[in-house]
Amino acid sequence: MKTLVVIGSTGSIGRQTLEVVKAQECLLVIGISCGHNIELVTQQVDIHRPRFVASLRKDPSLQVCFPRTRFFWGSKGIEELLDAARPDLVMISVPGVAGLRYSLIATEVSGRICLANKETLVCGGRVFLDAVQKNGVELIPVDSEHSAVFQLLEGDVKPREIFITASGGAVRDLKKAELQEITAAQVLKHPVWSMGEKVTIDSATMVNKGLEVIEAHYLFGLPQERILTFMCRNSVIHGGVIYEDGTVKLHAGVPDMKIPISYSLNHPERRPMDTEFDLTSESLLLEDIDEDKYPALSLAREITGHHARQIAYNAADEISVEAFLAGRIRFVRIFGIISSTIQRIDLDAPTSYNEIMEIDRTARIIAEEEVLRCSSL
Amino acid sequence: MKTLVVIGSTGSIGRQTLEVVKAQECLLVIGISCGHNIELVTQQVDIHRPRFVASLRKDPSLQVCFPRTRFFWGSKGIEELLDAARPDLVMISVPGVAGLRYSLIATEVSGRICLANKETLVCGGRVFLDAVQKNGVELIPVDSEHSAVFQLLEGDVKPREIFITASGGAVRDLKKAELQEITAAQVLKHPVWSMGEKVTIDSATMVNKGLEVIEAHYLFGLPQERILTFMCRNSVIHGGVIYEDGTVKLHAGVPDMKIPISYSLNHPERRPMDTEFDLTSESLLLEDIDEDKYPALSLAREITGHHARQIAYNAADEISVEAFLAGRIRFVRIFGIISSTIQRIDLDAPTSYNEIMEIDRTARIIAEEEVLRCSSL
Repeated sequence: MKTLVVIGSTGSIGRQTLEVVKAQECLLVIGISCGHNIELVTQQVDIHRPRFVASLRKDPSLQVCFPRTRFFWGSKGIEELLDAARPDLVMISVPGVAGLRYSLIATEVSGRICLANKETLVCGGRVFLDAVQKNGVELIPVDSEHSAVFQLLEGDVKPREIFITASGGAVRDLKKAELQEITAAQVLKHPVWSMGEKVTIDSATMVNKGLEVIEAHYLFGLPQERILTFMCRNSVIHGGVIYEDGTVKLHAGVPDMKIPISYSLNHPERRPMDTEFDLTSESLLLEDIDEDKYPALSLAREITGHHARQIAYNAADEISVEAFLAGRIRFVRIFGIISSTIQRIDLDAPTSYNEIMEIDRTARIIAEEEVLRCSSL
Repeated sequence: MKTLVVIGSTGSIGRQTLEVVKAQECLLVIGISCGHNIELVTQQVDIHRPRFVASLRKDPSLQVCFPRTRFFWGSKGIEELLDAARPDLVMISVPGVAGLRYSLIATEVSGRICLANKETLVCGGRVFLDAVQKNGVELIPVDSEHSAVFQLLEGDVKPREIFITASGGAVRDLKKAELQEITAAQVLKHPVWSMGEKVTIDSATMVNKGLEVIEAHYLFGLPQERILTFMCRNSVIHGGVIYEDGTVKLHAGVPDMKIPISYSLNHPERRPMDTEFDLTSESLLLEDIDEDKYPALSLAREITGHHARQIAYNAADEISVEAFLAGRIRFVRIFGIISSTIQRIDLDAPTSYNEIMEIDRTARIIAEEEVLRCSSL
C-alpha cells in the first residue's frame, strides 16, 4: 500500500482527502498537518493513526493522547514531517503562498504531488516546475478544472486550445453597479461550491479564475490566449480541450471535489465513487464571461508569464480579501488594489524561493498601503 | 508516406476520404474501388492517379485513358485489388454486408482498417474480431459516434458506461400516428447529416442506432446495457464515456464526417481541419429517446450478442428499406418486417464467413416474404 501525507488536513480539501482515503482504503495515511484546529486534528489522528503529525499550534496533550505518533510543532513542523515521512504521495492542500515551500520540499521527498495549492504554480512558476522536472516527480492537479483538462489531454498531441469554467460566484446575477455595497456575508454565499472563505471571495471577483489561467499556463505549457474561460452556472462542465481538427472534449460531472481528489490519488486508475449524474436533466450550457464585470480575469491574462507580477497579483489579492472580510474595504476595491500593486511592482523574474518570497513581501507592503488608501477614501 | 486504399470511393464517406487526403497530403492513395459510377471514378483517377482501381462495371475505355493504372473488373475486382495493393491503411466505406468480405481480406493485407461499414461488425461479429486479433490489425471506427467513444477511452481503464447519440432523423418531430402515411421523400430529408439514402432511412427508424449499439458492443467489449443512447438534436455531441468515479467525458464538434475520417487516417496524431465550433452558441442538450416511437432500437438491444439474429436484423432492414424506397411498403412496416424475420430465424452463431452469408441469404428470403405479406395487406 502506498503512503500519503496530507498537508493541510483540517481544511476543506484536506478533510475530503481523508474521507476519500478512508472510503477507498487505497492509501496509508502516514502524516497529516494542521494549523490551529486542534479539535479536528485530534479526531483525524484518532481515525487514521498517522505515524507523523505537524501542528502549527503546540499542544503537548496530543502527544500524551497518541504516544505512538511523532509530533512536530511550529512553523518548521511541516518541513520536518515531510523529511521524516518521505511518502509516496503528498497532497498539498493548504491555502496561500506557504504552500509553495511545502510543494518544493515535496519534490525532493515524494514521488507524486497532488496539488490543490494554486500559489505553488502562480508564485512558484518556473522555479517550482524546474524542481518537479529535476526530481522526476509526478504533478497531478486537484483543482476540478485543471484535473478535467489533465484527464482529457492525449499524450503528445498538443491541443489547439483548452478551457476552464467558472460558476460566476455569488455576484453573478448582480449588475456591476449593485456590487458597490455588497457585504462579505453576501459574497460568501457561493451558488454551487462549498469552499473556504478566501476562494469563495476569489470566485466572486474571478481572481480565482485568473489564478487558474496562470496555473494552467504552467501546468499545460500553453500561452494564456489558448486557455479559454467560460461561465458554467451549474459547474457541471469543468473544463475541456479543443484539438486542431475541431474536436472538442468536455469533462462533466457533479461538482464534488472528492472526484478530482480521488483521481489525483489513484491516477491512472479510477475508483468507484458514490455519485450520480443525470446527463439529460443537467443543462450543459457554456456562456461567455462578462470581462467588464470581472476585470480581475483580464488582468490575470495580461500578467500571465510575468513571474514577479503573478506573485504581486496573488499577494495583493490575499491582502485585499482579508481587508474586505475584516470590513476595512468594499468588495469593488479588491480589483483596484491588485491592479495598483502590480503597477508599482517592477521587478525581474525571481530565480529562487528566497527571491520569490522577497517579491511576495514587497507586494504585501504595497498592497497594505493601497488598502489604507482605499479605506481612508 | 503511408499508402491507402479506399473501398467504395464514390460513396459519401469515400468521396470525403479522398477530399481529406488531398487537403492534408498525408497519405498516398494507391487504390480505389467503385461500383457503377464510372463518371466520378474517372475524375478521382484523374486527380489521385492511383496505381490500382477496381470497378464493378467493366469499362475498357478507362484503361485507355489511364494506361499506367491497373484495373480490376467485376465482383472479384476488389479482392484482387487489395491483394495487389497491400496498403498500410484501408478505408472500408462501402455500405452493406459486402463490406464484411473486404474487411476480412483487409485484415490479411493491411495494417489498419478504418471502418465505416457497420455490417462488418454487426454481421461479422466475433468472426471478424478474431481475424483482426489474429492478424494484429489496428481497427479504427469512422462512424462519428464510435470515433467519439474511441477518442475518449483511457487505455486500460474500463468505463462504467459509454453513450452514443442520435439526431432522431427526419421523423423526430412527428407523432407516432403521423408516421403512418409518411413518404420516402419526407424521410430522406435528414435534419443534420447529409448521407446515403439507406442510412438516412435507418436514422429515421433508429435501425441505424440499433446497428451502432451492436457495433459498439463488439468494438468496446461492453454489454448493451452499458451502451447508452441519447438524442442530440443538433448532433454536436457525438458520444461519451462515463467512469466509475462519476466522471463524464463528452465528445463534441460540428457534425462533419471529415473529422472522424481524418482521425481514423491520422491516429494517434491529429491534423488541422477547417472547422469552427462555437461552444457558447451551440446547445449541448441530451434527451432521452422515445423507445415507443423507435422500437427498432430496443429490438437491436434485445438481440445484441446473438450473432445470427444480428445478421437477420441487418438483412431484413436492407430488404425492407429497399421496399420502402421502391414504394412497395409503408415506412411503419419496416420495423414489423425486421421483427418478424428475426422471430423466424433460429440458428446457431456462425463460425465462418460462409456461414454468415448463408444466414444472411436465409434472412433475406424470409424478409422478402414478409415484404410481400405487408404489401398485399
